[in-house]
Amino acid sequence: MSGRGRLTVVGLGPGDPRLLTGAAAQALEEAQDLVGYEPYVARVPERPGQRRHASDNRVELDRARHALELAASGRRVAVVSGGDPGVFAMAAAVFEAIEAGDPAWRGLDVAVEPGITAMLAAAARVGAPLGGDFCALSLSDNLKPWAVVEARLEAVLRADLVVALYNPISKARPWQLGAAFDLALRIRPADTPVVLARAVTRPDEAIRVLPLGEARNAPADMATVVVLGASGTRLIARGEGLAPIVYTRRSVPAPEAA
Amino acid sequence: MSGRGRLTVVGLGPGDPRLLTGAAAQALEEAQDLVGYEPYVARVPERPGQRRHASDNRVELDRARHALELAASGRRVAVVSGGDPGVFAMAAAVFEAIEAGDPAWRGLDVAVEPGITAMLAAAARVGAPLGGDFCALSLSDNLKPWAVVEARLEAVLRADLVVALYNPISKARPWQLGAAFDLALRIRPADTPVVLARAVTRPDEAIRVLPLGEARNAPADMATVVVLGASGTRLIARGEGLAPIVYTRRSVPAPEAA
Repeated sequence: MSGRGRLTVVGLGPGDPRLLTGAAAQALEEAQDLVGYEPYVARVPERPGQRRHASDNRVELDRARHALELAASGRRVAVVSGGDPGVFAMAAAVFEAIEAGDPAWRGLDVAVEPGITAMLAAAARVGAPLGGDFCALSLSDNLKPWAVVEARLEAVLRADLVVALYNPISKARPWQLGAAFDLALRIRPADTPVVLARAVTRPDEAIRVLPLGEARNAPADMATVVVLGASGTRLIARGEGLAPIVYTRRSVPAPEAA
Repeated sequence: MSGRGRLTVVGLGPGDPRLLTGAAAQALEEAQDLVGYEPYVARVPERPGQRRHASDNRVELDRARHALELAASGRRVAVVSGGDPGVFAMAAAVFEAIEAGDPAWRGLDVAVEPGITAMLAAAARVGAPLGGDFCALSLSDNLKPWAVVEARLEAVLRADLVVALYNPISKARPWQLGAAFDLALRIRPADTPVVLARAVTRPDEAIRVLPLGEARNAPADMATVVVLGASGTRLIARGEGLAPIVYTRRSVPAPEAA
């Protein structure tokens, strides 16, 4: 035992180190152990004496328990997470492990350092598509039934929210994003702007703005966040090689009398 | 004219300068003119030669036009915004002004630097209440009819999303938050965890975690963000003077057969 341990779940943001907060950078500096999915651990500059525990993507709870054991033994641990750790990332897994695990873990010094989550980074790149009411849904049916995903998506589409879709597609879930676009097309016009933002702020960044009616054929993968516009989402054409601006109006008109 | 102007809408985060990103800090340093709501401008350290244009809260579009005029005249302008500029803040106002304004403004070099928005900062402080699907709604009926606010809130409550409420209350809108809690109580159990997070990370920070049935009597103001838990939102008691953890489980069980 080397004093009281500490576990901080640190948001690395979308990728560009310039989008890290000062507090997150400090938590990474102070950590004796880094725990996380391998590509996220690899983003953190190596530091002499700091131990690195990189793991596969499919073992969030094992990773959380390992980090808690290290902290309980007195180590200062940073669990690294892409984006914001509280948005479809590691923070909830850590708290699930605390709730189900060794009662002593409840007394640990645990903190979360927020980060720029993918939808905020993507939105900033294209304008302000989240400028009105919006929601963030995970399209993955690994942890919830597809019927729940579909019911939630339909509800927020009908309520005219802008929708950010996380985890839109993977090799094991190849058809869900297409099904989501099909559902959206039954509720929103085919010219509704859709943003497909891949690897935002990273060297392989690729951002596409397409009408909903054409979105089904655009490439997407697990590094993509998809933003479906609402009725107030607008495109501003700019001409001369400048990308169009996508933003959502802040105001919503009163419904017309029937 | 002193070369090509530039307008950057900069997210200051929730208040603590340690939650600023490096990119946002750099945009503030490089700006010749700072434009924004007075308390946000006041957060930025003064810099010799940098002009400060602070204004009242109720003039977003005027402020946006002023910033665009400055940029069009060749100045490097930072429009400062609390939290993330794309979430109920200045970015959409700037793009509305561009769409409706001088066509030359479409050719300006305009960028958005994202920031930690209030719900992410509040969530990190208490655990991970946004750990499942969630939405962000503005409770203000200045820019949309109350009937739309209510219909959206009801839709996301029924869809079992965690709900972050921005702009929950003000002197001119004293009853809307209470009405929102009443609506939530018709749909969610009275013991659902609610987080009222005021001035997160600032010296006057005040965070309360209450059951929904008691939330109506808690103090709240325009600096508060309210997070309504969903069915998967849990409280972990910790004892011995430690605040409870609030988090939302990542998984959603399959609905029981009727």
